[in-house]
Amino acid sequence: MFAPRSIKHCRACGGEVRYQTPADDNRDRATCLVCTTIHYENPLNVVGTLPVWEDKVLLCRRAIEPRHGLWTVPAGFMENGETTFQGAARETLEEANARVEVGQLYALYNIPHINQVYILFRARLLDLDFSAGAETLETALFAERDIPWEKLAFATVRNTLTHYYSDRAAGDYKFHMGTIEPLARPVRT
Amino acid sequence: MFAPRSIKHCRACGGEVRYQTPADDNRDRATCLVCTTIHYENPLNVVGTLPVWEDKVLLCRRAIEPRHGLWTVPAGFMENGETTFQGAARETLEEANARVEVGQLYALYNIPHINQVYILFRARLLDLDFSAGAETLETALFAERDIPWEKLAFATVRNTLTHYYSDRAAGDYKFHMGTIEPLARPVRT
Repeated sequence: MFAPRSIKHCRACGGEVRYQTPADDNRDRATCLVCTTIHYENPLNVVGTLPVWEDKVLLCRRAIEPRHGLWTVPAGFMENGETTFQGAARETLEEANARVEVGQLYALYNIPHINQVYILFRARLLDLDFSAGAETLETALFAERDIPWEKLAFATVRNTLTHYYSDRAAGDYKFHMGTIEPLARPVRT
Repeated sequence: MFAPRSIKHCRACGGEVRYQTPADDNRDRATCLVCTTIHYENPLNVVGTLPVWEDKVLLCRRAIEPRHGLWTVPAGFMENGETTFQGAARETLEEANARVEVGQLYALYNIPHINQVYILFRARLLDLDFSAGAETLETALFAERDIPWEKLAFATVRNTLTHYYSDRAAGDYKFHMGTIEPLARPVRT
């Protein structure tokens, strides 16, 4: 959303802000030079689902940047006032007009270089009445052999699908945690 | 940290902000009336550990509000540029001057009424050279029979310790996910 260290004005009074380390802190914070309010910047959660119908998974082709035109799982920024699983269900509805029963927490990916945490749940698609939401070009169900591996939007999606098919073959869905480094990003093809 | 819906000025230009729903959105956002920048507000992650030494756990007595004087696990707001487990280790060092080996993700608590997600890891205390950090009155190791159940700071801490002793007795540490409702908060005694 907003680039880190880009705060120029105080949200409380509009005064000029400077990045400096408060007396009781150990890192620079945007500090208002007028009213002394400190503005913290923290990572954001992206919440979403891996919606499953029989032997297929539901993916969405992105209508927005980054990774316009590539495939992803339905996910987006967690909002105030909701739980992680409520946010995951809401994003699935918004991106794919799809109703799901949210299941187990399936993956947590740290993405420190962009200050995000991806939190993904397995989910059961409740009906086939899905369609592209405003930020989606198209939605489709994919069997394993049809997954567009070369056209996936994010490393988080590739990792989650890889784990899913491995776990499904083993008959044991484990929780997966990982860290996405800049070099692990897929090259856009 | 900052109360939701309390943005009065644009962080980009200092102009006046109004809460209104952008054309492509479905909820009110702080929108700058001068430069049209939209300021999103999202939940924060609190990351921490349950540090274990033999049959004891390390707790911290809080030197700050909320819940000044009550006991908690070492935890605090996740910072930009770090992973959840790096943040958990950092908070353990800051709150208790304690070095840990961070283990499995142990609990994730949604706290939607205060827009927070608690992410706690089991951890192995590496030595006994711990002490109170700046936001801590004292640190101590507790055996199960000595846990100050009536003086725990948060429902997240009570739940985590309850799960821990139950899992330990069963010999199987499971991941726990839950939602903390306002009424579930412990009454301060």
